[in-house]
Amino acid sequence: MAVYTQLSAETLAELIAEYDVGELVSAKGIAEGVSNSNWLIETSGSAANGKRFILTMYERRIELEDLPFFLDLLDHLAAHDCPVPRTIHDRSGASSRMLQGKAVALIEFLPGVSVDAPTPAQARSVGRVLAEMHATAMGFSGKRQNSLGPDVSAQVLADCPAQALAAIDPALPGVVEMARDVAQRWPDGLPRSIIHSDLFPDNVLMRGDNVSALIDFYFACNDAMAYDLAVTHAAWSFSSDGRDYRPDVGQALVEGYESTRLLEDDEREAMPLLAQGAALRFISSRAQDWIETPADALVTRKDPMDFVRRLEFYRREGKAVFGS
Amino acid sequence: MAVYTQLSAETLAELIAEYDVGELVSAKGIAEGVSNSNWLIETSGSAANGKRFILTMYERRIELEDLPFFLDLLDHLAAHDCPVPRTIHDRSGASSRMLQGKAVALIEFLPGVSVDAPTPAQARSVGRVLAEMHATAMGFSGKRQNSLGPDVSAQVLADCPAQALAAIDPALPGVVEMARDVAQRWPDGLPRSIIHSDLFPDNVLMRGDNVSALIDFYFACNDAMAYDLAVTHAAWSFSSDGRDYRPDVGQALVEGYESTRLLEDDEREAMPLLAQGAALRFISSRAQDWIETPADALVTRKDPMDFVRRLEFYRREGKAVFGS
Repeated sequence: MAVYTQLSAETLAELIAEYDVGELVSAKGIAEGVSNSNWLIETSGSAANGKRFILTMYERRIELEDLPFFLDLLDHLAAHDCPVPRTIHDRSGASSRMLQGKAVALIEFLPGVSVDAPTPAQARSVGRVLAEMHATAMGFSGKRQNSLGPDVSAQVLADCPAQALAAIDPALPGVVEMARDVAQRWPDGLPRSIIHSDLFPDNVLMRGDNVSALIDFYFACNDAMAYDLAVTHAAWSFSSDGRDYRPDVGQALVEGYESTRLLEDDEREAMPLLAQGAALRFISSRAQDWIETPADALVTRKDPMDFVRRLEFYRREGKAVFGS
Repeated sequence: MAVYTQLSAETLAELIAEYDVGELVSAKGIAEGVSNSNWLIETSGSAANGKRFILTMYERRIELEDLPFFLDLLDHLAAHDCPVPRTIHDRSGASSRMLQGKAVALIEFLPGVSVDAPTPAQARSVGRVLAEMHATAMGFSGKRQNSLGPDVSAQVLADCPAQALAAIDPALPGVVEMARDVAQRWPDGLPRSIIHSDLFPDNVLMRGDNVSALIDFYFACNDAMAYDLAVTHAAWSFSSDGRDYRPDVGQALVEGYESTRLLEDDEREAMPLLAQGAALRFISSRAQDWIETPADALVTRKDPMDFVRRLEFYRREGKAVFGS
């Protein structure tokens, strides 16, 4: 979480002048985004556009060719009243520009805070908004494959040296076989839409119990909607170390989702396995990061065991949790 | 430049509820401040107070006992229409509170951007506002000694091993004797007020050619006003590496200052020496940081030679620059 690039006020003012948003009034680098630089921008405003924006510079990870998909998706959802920030297009109509060799986008600022310990009422709102987003995204024509599916998780874990996994935790090498098993049993043919696929509390802005914005769609892709609910369940319903399941939060999330879209029988049946796949996605990326990050780096490594505990929970309790 | 402490939305909301500013609506950690954590806070607002604030958590360097001086100074200056952010007092009237063992203060947000390459018109505005600040601060009763005067610079440099200085640059050990000489010749009895003493472009917010705010008063102290002008001259009138003096910017700064308060003869006479003292302050702190920071640390070390070049310029050209 950092601002990777320094942009002078003069450079920012020139960039902002390419948009119909008035003149630059204030710019603060904000400590958000794992792989982007972000600024909270204030302008003098215009008739068509507001006064506050997030300027994002895409530093790495994001494939430039995917950017139109992400930005067009925001525009589609915002135009259909989903609580997501819309993108501001420049005077030539483009939703992104190049600056100093990197892509930048100007995005509407929406108020709200990301909660640390969600309440059941907040989880219920998130579930409902997630289902609304799925329904609205069915009308979006863009396509993007999920590059982090169960096969990929299984392969990433299989590629980690067993010794390196065991050095993180003696239980971790045993997960490799579970990942292969989950990938083999992965269901086909569940109802699909565009999914967010990374809807942690960090990526939801709330005002009180209401969702004011879903943000950070940079993992969005075409995939099973129930899998998105499973990711969100794993992200919202546990203490961060995965030791404590919060049944009231998990239940409210699913109820909120089903208040807008009822799960079909095959989706409900698949939920325990989908939730294991969700846990494995974060286990695999965290294990890989852990092994690749030197222990003395100034970056905090995230412990893959936080999600191994969730994986074990879903293997053990999944049917009871999802009523399948 | 970082957010050193993570505060949850729940913790921030509780803190904000201690002030008459409405409810927390948004909080973004901002990448500002060398030794503090800062958040840009938006609230629902109240009749008495606005909607946007900077929340500062004092992480280190700042002596807690100095905090009332800094915060009361802001209140005094703001009450007399100097462009500085006022502090927001909590419901009990306190300008700072303790949170998780650290002091925090809620400060008015003011618009504006910090320029990288100031124009003469901008320097003129800064000079004028600096003189106004000096005049207004004469009515402030708080006292704080300058802990970074010429004696301290000379001692810090004398305490650096000559070999370590030479490893940074072969010219650096020669500066130790110059620092001792400047400290010995330092003038007494120049007109005093509260000075900012760190007025780099980073610490000035501008809208176009006008100053919208002076910020970051955490080095403010009682000292000679002309010394503050000298620090500001060294900070504004050169390319950042100190190689290029920008005479139009330097001249506009002094003219702007004198449009509000004419320098007295002894001040004008002293300017070349004061400017050398200003350069030495940053040489000494940078040299010390350089020696104490491992070369492979992720922190960017600032090159003391940037200010050795300014020191040499003021030794060579000082009289001509300041008309003394």
